[in-house]
Amino acid sequence: MKKIAVLTSGGDAPGMNAAIRASVRAALYNHVEVYGIIRGYKGMIDGDIKKLESRDVSNIIQRGGTVLKSARSEEFRTKRGREKAYKNLTELGIEGLVAIGGNGTFTGAEIFMKEFGIPTIGVPGTIDNDLYGTDYTIGFDTAVNTALDAIDKIRDTADSHDRVFFVEVMGRDSGYIAIQTGIGGGAEMVMVPENPDSIEGVIDTLSAGRDRKKSSSLIIVAEGEDLGDAHYISVKAKEMLPNMDIRMTTLGHVQRGGAPTAIDRILGSRLGLAAVEGLLEGKKNVMAGVINDQVVYTSFHDSINKKKPLNKDLIKMVNILSI
Amino acid sequence: MKKIAVLTSGGDAPGMNAAIRASVRAALYNHVEVYGIIRGYKGMIDGDIKKLESRDVSNIIQRGGTVLKSARSEEFRTKRGREKAYKNLTELGIEGLVAIGGNGTFTGAEIFMKEFGIPTIGVPGTIDNDLYGTDYTIGFDTAVNTALDAIDKIRDTADSHDRVFFVEVMGRDSGYIAIQTGIGGGAEMVMVPENPDSIEGVIDTLSAGRDRKKSSSLIIVAEGEDLGDAHYISVKAKEMLPNMDIRMTTLGHVQRGGAPTAIDRILGSRLGLAAVEGLLEGKKNVMAGVINDQVVYTSFHDSINKKKPLNKDLIKMVNILSI
Amino acid sequence: MKKIAVLTSGGDAPGMNAAIRASVRAALYNHVEVYGIIRGYKGMIDGDIKKLESRDVSNIIQRGGTVLKSARSEEFRTKRGREKAYKNLTELGIEGLVAIGGNGTFTGAEIFMKEFGIPTIGVPGTIDNDLYGTDYTIGFDTAVNTALDAIDKIRDTADSHDRVFFVEVMGRDSGYIAIQTGIGGGAEMVMVPENPDSIEGVIDTLSAGRDRKKSSSLIIVAEGEDLGDAHYISVKAKEMLPNMDIRMTTLGHVQRGGAPTAIDRILGSRLGLAAVEGLLEGKKNVMAGVINDQVVYTSFHDSINKKKPLNKDLIKMVNILSI
Amino acid sequence: MKKIAVLTSGGDAPGMNAAIRASVRAALYNHVEVYGIIRGYKGMIDGDIKKLESRDVSNIIQRGGTVLKSARSEEFRTKRGREKAYKNLTELGIEGLVAIGGNGTFTGAEIFMKEFGIPTIGVPGTIDNDLYGTDYTIGFDTAVNTALDAIDKIRDTADSHDRVFFVEVMGRDSGYIAIQTGIGGGAEMVMVPENPDSIEGVIDTLSAGRDRKKSSSLIIVAEGEDLGDAHYISVKAKEMLPNMDIRMTTLGHVQRGGAPTAIDRILGSRLGLAAVEGLLEGKKNVMAGVINDQVVYTSFHDSINKKKPLNKDLIKMVNILSI
Repeated sequence: MKKIAVLTSGGDAPGMNAAIRASVRAALYNHVEVYGIIRGYKGMIDGDIKKLESRDVSNIIQRGGTVLKSARSEEFRTKRGREKAYKNLTELGIEGLVAIGGNGTFTGAEIFMKEFGIPTIGVPGTIDNDLYGTDYTIGFDTAVNTALDAIDKIRDTADSHDRVFFVEVMGRDSGYIAIQTGIGGGAEMVMVPENPDSIEGVIDTLSAGRDRKKSSSLIIVAEGEDLGDAHYISVKAKEMLPNMDIRMTTLGHVQRGGAPTAIDRILGSRLGLAAVEGLLEGKKNVMAGVINDQVVYTSFHDSINKKKPLNKDLIKMVNILSI
Repeated sequence: MKKIAVLTSGGDAPGMNAAIRASVRAALYNHVEVYGIIRGYKGMIDGDIKKLESRDVSNIIQRGGTVLKSARSEEFRTKRGREKAYKNLTELGIEGLVAIGGNGTFTGAEIFMKEFGIPTIGVPGTIDNDLYGTDYTIGFDTAVNTALDAIDKIRDTADSHDRVFFVEVMGRDSGYIAIQTGIGGGAEMVMVPENPDSIEGVIDTLSAGRDRKKSSSLIIVAEGEDLGDAHYISVKAKEMLPNMDIRMTTLGHVQRGGAPTAIDRILGSRLGLAAVEGLLEGKKNVMAGVINDQVVYTSFHDSINKKKPLNKDLIKMVNILSI
Repeated sequence: MKKIAVLTSGGDAPGMNAAIRASVRAALYNHVEVYGIIRGYKGMIDGDIKKLESRDVSNIIQRGGTVLKSARSEEFRTKRGREKAYKNLTELGIEGLVAIGGNGTFTGAEIFMKEFGIPTIGVPGTIDNDLYGTDYTIGFDTAVNTALDAIDKIRDTADSHDRVFFVEVMGRDSGYIAIQTGIGGGAEMVMVPENPDSIEGVIDTLSAGRDRKKSSSLIIVAEGEDLGDAHYISVKAKEMLPNMDIRMTTLGHVQRGGAPTAIDRILGSRLGLAAVEGLLEGKKNVMAGVINDQVVYTSFHDSINKKKPLNKDLIKMVNILSI
Repeated sequence: MKKIAVLTSGGDAPGMNAAIRASVRAALYNHVEVYGIIRGYKGMIDGDIKKLESRDVSNIIQRGGTVLKSARSEEFRTKRGREKAYKNLTELGIEGLVAIGGNGTFTGAEIFMKEFGIPTIGVPGTIDNDLYGTDYTIGFDTAVNTALDAIDKIRDTADSHDRVFFVEVMGRDSGYIAIQTGIGGGAEMVMVPENPDSIEGVIDTLSAGRDRKKSSSLIIVAEGEDLGDAHYISVKAKEMLPNMDIRMTTLGHVQRGGAPTAIDRILGSRLGLAAVEGLLEGKKNVMAGVINDQVVYTSFHDSINKKKPLNKDLIKMVNILSI
């Protein structure tokens, strides 16, 4: 393999730049030419592809976002679009791909690879940590720390005013961010899609806290919580506990950005390197991940379709620790 | 004057603890006993007042919120409530008050002082910077930096996806936070209550940015913007610019908390000290502020009723710098 | 077991407060009384021991340092000192101990336990990550992120001035902090006690970087590096590369403090809980750790005497990624 | 004036990029072509000068360091070197200069301007805040906040171990950083070149703190303190107070870098803009500064030679507040 290309796709995640840098330098280290595809599959179709040298990825490891940019591409969902993409790659002589992103990215890569046979290795870059085949995805640790920093600030206010705060964090399909910020933020309760919750449970928790003379309470709600969003739940709670000073806030898009944490830079670096080494060893159609501190490769099929379970001991831990 | 008391009231602001610490230590330095009133006027009525020593305010200068807590008090709006408060103060022999807070705090202090004659000096503690008689209020610089930190993160995402972001920051009556975060965040436009804005102006700005090949745009909206909130404005913009990827986020309560910046710790320290020195010199019914790096005292009447103008050159600057 | 006590000993580490909070609340959750021993073994001898309730550990999870304080105790090295300590514990009816700290802490605990038979479970709290029996120690992730934040700042200057910087990070016996900050900081080289280094190697790396038109270079030196400290190495490098602008800095004590990261709060929480659960299940003389995301208990003997190896692949990775 | 150039020189300071961005965009807004000179006077001599467009300064306002780089230039100290520089500027048709830096930068600019008559306006960019003609220099507020962040971390450790810490901060000729971090960090004492200090004074302060049961003490030492550096002073203090646990740390180069604070971004923006507007109005040989929130222009002669006094009330305040 003499030429490969790297792309990022899907929502950006802190640490993607570390993975890009590692892929580029691992390629060059192995005397492989390397190209960057701008805006993921869209750039592949548009031919927005440029040769990268080592200096092009200098001084990016500490930056949030992705220097290769990301975009949706409806056209890549069509056969015709993918044909254009393939033509662009072959014209440049690109023989392998590193695709950094999430579920949608890998789904696209799998279809493309089946049709045109270009070996592809995926790198899990998404803040949600919802991919099977790796303990953590790139960006998750940064998102949790960003959320935690916000929660520390909210607690200052909650405590000064004896308030209850409902805080909504990201996680459409997964409670990973919620559970980690809940434990780290010393929350009284964490509401995640993986666990059944009820308004009664919320009321019980808040009432019990009040009886134990808690001066303030935090309840973390995952974006994908079945019971409703944080706004809805806080309104319900206010109706039933009219004497409590109850507020809510949604952390929103800030959770995606910012300088990556050490963990995300190292994970991005390891997996960017592992993707290139995998390609050179002839692997394809797999996602590189780290499980128990070892690099492992999982088929796209499994990483897309299998569900990574949430450790429910952690939910139980929230109850014990908020006593 | 041999005994004074300190309270915080209204919304908490980072740097209030620096002001509390400075008031307590300035009192002790001048051989004056000092009491802390818990939860502002509510605690004054409930008699929740405790003697403070120097060690009680150790290691608080770096903390957000207020260790004396804050609360609303409907009862203090009644004559009867204020009589209870006065009785509690006289029983302890308290002869002067330092009241840290905003407009509402000073209004309460002025009424109380007129009725019962206890000399009071106000310290401006509010993130909104909307008080006449001081260049900056305690908490404003921290709130701006917190908002800026969030905006830096959002720009990572905006830039990675070529998006437009509307970001709503605090400031119900004042565009101070918006204008400073707008300049500091490199925003394309800032929408504040002090300035007339129109959807057409928003569309023009975004269209012009697109024509100049800007890859992303940020528009900062003050909470009190006349045209509507950031959600409303972003929806309108989407209708008129359907091809742009337009998002919005409301920063919310995180802007209130967090470790205070250097400026807020120093301002809090100077004004807490100035309040006590003012009381000892016989001043009363005034707010201590810093104008042009000098401590000045402004009557509660003026600080409550006069309007601090926003420097409109700064709004113009946003336009020039986003070219 | 109806009464236990918790102590911190050795150098403070961010996340110790999370472990204290978890131990206290896990005890109370299990209807066990819990005491805090102030200043570790010194406080045990001095009888500086106080009963803790749930509210005593509120709002500490986000704080650096240890609310139970830490101190050296020469007296605890004597039989007589330990007898005093035992007497104080028995007078209060304390039947079990949670000892949060490092190697020295566990050595003390083991001797004490052998002499007096009080069951003790250790919790690994040290920024150095040099304890066998756990993937990570509490405080390590925070220290690495603090060092990384400093290195990002230094790179701003290095890059603006085309400089070489030697940065010394903590780690007297272990290169863990150095290797992680090296990868995360995009360093050109990492010098750790586990790996043989030479001045010639340093010169080669810097010369090669210059030849590849690197505008700046960072070399991370672990405190315990055999070749000498960062000052010594930078002086040698300057002698041999007089045309390069070479600087050095020692990060020092800042690496110990600060709000703990999510990882350290969660690890502290899990292990504080695991220590109490271990005591209640009859375990003793062991350290609670997390290996491959599972709680495990390792005998004090092994945790003190066995050496946790540094993953040398990571050193190799630095070379590849700095090409 | 149809073409101008911008350069940064001297030590880098956070906020320089905001000033570069503002100069570039203010020039383009006024239909003036603008060039960036790389590595200050060195680049002027080497002809390392490139035309800048608006997009070249996108997304830099939040970055530490300077994208135009900085370097020493011995050659610019010679007439011959300056002649080369002049030739390069005239060949490009450059009619005016914006020089961002400190004392040395302005001294160079003044000589160059006298010899060759190219109008130059200076922008004060240095973390030391030691320039006459502006309340604050660009970078100062960020440096103070960075130092403060480090001091907060050190206090966690100091407090956990009942230690005394001497912390050396930057400021070779000026105690500005020391005094602001001292007040903001709640230090017991601040040692600055502007004030006479003695070891006896240090001992008295520490002894008094011990008598008042302070659990920990921080003493901030400016780099330029007459009595010696923090290492020397801490050794002397240890000799005289052998029972205290005394440590020291030098914050070093981290104080120069990092994302600029709001204040520094806004100051940089205002002054970059003011420099260009000044050039267009025919001003020259002056430094743009902000005094009492108004832009003012001070002759290079005064800004170089006059001394900005340190407000000694602030030193007194440290004593009162550390009681």
